[in-house]
Amino acid sequence: MNDLHQMAHDARLAAWTLAASDIDTRNAALLAMADELEARQADIFAVNKADLAKAEQDHLAAPLLGRLKFAEEKLAAVTAGLRALAGLPDPIGQTTLSRELTEGLKMYRITCPIGVIGVIFESRPDALVQIASLALKSGNAVLLKGGREAINTNRALCDALRAAAEKVGLPADFAQLLETREDVAAMLKEDTLIDLIIPRGSNEFVRYIMDNSRIPVLGHADGVCHVYVDKAADLDMAVSIAVDSKTQNVAVCNAMETLLVHRDVAAAYLPKLLPALQAKNVKVLGDETVQSIIPVLPATEEDWHAEYLDYTLSIKVVDSLDEAIAHINRYGSHHTDAIVTADEAAAQAFLTRVDSAGVYHNVSTRFADGFVYGFGAEVGIATGKIHARGPMGLEGLTTYKYKLLGSGQLMAEMKNGTRQYTHVLLNEDCPL
Amino acid sequence: MNDLHQMAHDARLAAWTLAASDIDTRNAALLAMADELEARQADIFAVNKADLAKAEQDHLAAPLLGRLKFAEEKLAAVTAGLRALAGLPDPIGQTTLSRELTEGLKMYRITCPIGVIGVIFESRPDALVQIASLALKSGNAVLLKGGREAINTNRALCDALRAAAEKVGLPADFAQLLETREDVAAMLKEDTLIDLIIPRGSNEFVRYIMDNSRIPVLGHADGVCHVYVDKAADLDMAVSIAVDSKTQNVAVCNAMETLLVHRDVAAAYLPKLLPALQAKNVKVLGDETVQSIIPVLPATEEDWHAEYLDYTLSIKVVDSLDEAIAHINRYGSHHTDAIVTADEAAAQAFLTRVDSAGVYHNVSTRFADGFVYGFGAEVGIATGKIHARGPMGLEGLTTYKYKLLGSGQLMAEMKNGTRQYTHVLLNEDCPL
Repeated sequence: MNDLHQMAHDARLAAWTLAASDIDTRNAALLAMADELEARQADIFAVNKADLAKAEQDHLAAPLLGRLKFAEEKLAAVTAGLRALAGLPDPIGQTTLSRELTEGLKMYRITCPIGVIGVIFESRPDALVQIASLALKSGNAVLLKGGREAINTNRALCDALRAAAEKVGLPADFAQLLETREDVAAMLKEDTLIDLIIPRGSNEFVRYIMDNSRIPVLGHADGVCHVYVDKAADLDMAVSIAVDSKTQNVAVCNAMETLLVHRDVAAAYLPKLLPALQAKNVKVLGDETVQSIIPVLPATEEDWHAEYLDYTLSIKVVDSLDEAIAHINRYGSHHTDAIVTADEAAAQAFLTRVDSAGVYHNVSTRFADGFVYGFGAEVGIATGKIHARGPMGLEGLTTYKYKLLGSGQLMAEMKNGTRQYTHVLLNEDCPL
Repeated sequence: MNDLHQMAHDARLAAWTLAASDIDTRNAALLAMADELEARQADIFAVNKADLAKAEQDHLAAPLLGRLKFAEEKLAAVTAGLRALAGLPDPIGQTTLSRELTEGLKMYRITCPIGVIGVIFESRPDALVQIASLALKSGNAVLLKGGREAINTNRALCDALRAAAEKVGLPADFAQLLETREDVAAMLKEDTLIDLIIPRGSNEFVRYIMDNSRIPVLGHADGVCHVYVDKAADLDMAVSIAVDSKTQNVAVCNAMETLLVHRDVAAAYLPKLLPALQAKNVKVLGDETVQSIIPVLPATEEDWHAEYLDYTLSIKVVDSLDEAIAHINRYGSHHTDAIVTADEAAAQAFLTRVDSAGVYHNVSTRFADGFVYGFGAEVGIATGKIHARGPMGLEGLTTYKYKLLGSGQLMAEMKNGTRQYTHVLLNEDCPL
């Protein structure tokens, strides 16, 4: 059986080695991972077939089976991702602030890995490769808990990644697999060995994690995203953005759940929108004003909170930009919200005052994604405000330390006036 | 009585107003605060005298009485601090990343306030002014809970700051005072209205907060700081740095608690060090090797964990740089640790591999401070690794949002190949 405490301890040791490793070695590990997965593909596909057969026996829904499947197409995607990741710049060891504090004493703020990160993710085996590779590139060790349906596939993938790391001289224990809920419960107690927990999953699950651990948690709760159609909107653009935000993929956290429409354009806009939504089989709910313009079902207070993740949309008519902003800040989940308008002042007010990780002008909410943002991939999307916000790529997996390089400076000298603070910004890299 | 939920709600509304306020107004508020404190000084000093008289009756220790006192000298320091803070650049609204995602669609990462922050601090009334002013400059609202000994002084100071904010048109509720432990317990439950808790206080207190709230907590636990005297150290420098790190102020978290000495220089160094420590009345404890060189009391396993905050020092002889690093990472509190050496390779290894917020070469640990680092002041020193590390100034009180400015881009177009990702870095400010 896994001894979680020992695993966390091994991860900590691996993390210290990774933190001191050079970027060439870490990039070589990423390339070796791609090669190793290709070399082992027959075995990996075979165990994935076994996982799939078991899941079918257990009557798993078709979309879940699709996510569980790991064959040629997914392998090609993850190996391409690994090779692209090897080409990105080193996220650690970067100097982000440099300053002379007093004569002969320089301060440098240097990015460094967080350390040991626990990630709990759904039944997508390709997520394991993405998470582990982002962690290694940024010098972190990870404890990984995937969905139980994917257990054999995850074991095969994790073994391949560990073997690749060892081949280039990095510790295999940078990635370790947890297999049971008891492992997760035990992991949450290791607050001296684990620095961060990233849970991907339902709202209730994230709350369970937060309630049961002292370890900092970066997770995303709901994705209740809005599009607001302003009175100065291009109505054709507003139709296409609403349709894309709602229907391009309904099962994801950056899909729109509620549409807000300014009263001045509601009568012109809603009759244009309805057939476009009906063509995609969207069930539309609306407040009383919406119902007076187009034939839809009534929306209730609960609908403004709802994350449907389905072909359902609630629509509300608002009297002003202010009302739209207030509605979003009250009912939204601070994920991603968009305004459609030709009025730059309205756009600026919306972008400044909506309290969300993503605030968009004239673009679909579906763009909230680590790959789309140019981060290579993402470990998750953070809807909290601490540390990282929105898609978490390499930078979200780093912290920093302050390096001070002196020549014997004493606080007693500063206090008695022998030395003075200079506080000159340097804009130079740390030599050590 | 305070209704904590209502207070948190009012703070949230104030935070939204502050987030959209311009920097000139926020700076005017800081200058108005300095003026207001000066105008009300007679009243403030009078209520502080009442707090002091009560504390003396209650037999508060002399150092605590010194911290509680708020008279001319402290007023001059806080008003100078407020006026200096008004001169610092705006920490919010800064573009930290800009990228074209696809033709006509630009992404900007913009710094913004965290929102509502709860800060629990000790019986230093000047801390209230520092914390509230850093919060206002960075566009945040704060709920403040100070030591109960300072209650009348804190009320007078908080009233002055609130009045000053109102004079320039900002909401008074950017700063609100909590007065009881029940208020603190109630605050910890408001996880939908409060974004961050910063507890300053004992280790056990910080753990109590973490165990009783879902709100992210940034606190500092112990300050178990080390100085390591390498075999290539300048021994005279190593004596003065050790004495400064230990004795310049023993009661603070950045004071040294354990000294590590390389075996090769122990016989030469320790007899130089001992009289310098004895001149400052430091009680010295040592391992067996230390005891064989200088006449000191034995150190036990508990001493390696101890935060004395007093004139006591434990000394250990190590066989190597590696052993020193391992000791610090095992027993230290990841606060601030220094190496004294003339060997740059040893310094580099120490600075890279010691897992602390501050890693110093040839300088006293006492330099770990927000003012010293040039941050103006600090809300606290974070010993965790998430969000902020080390002294937290203005930057530690900000987060960011992604603004996307488009012209109708749809995810359906990206998926069907009508549009391609360009991912060109722009290096420009966000126009909205």
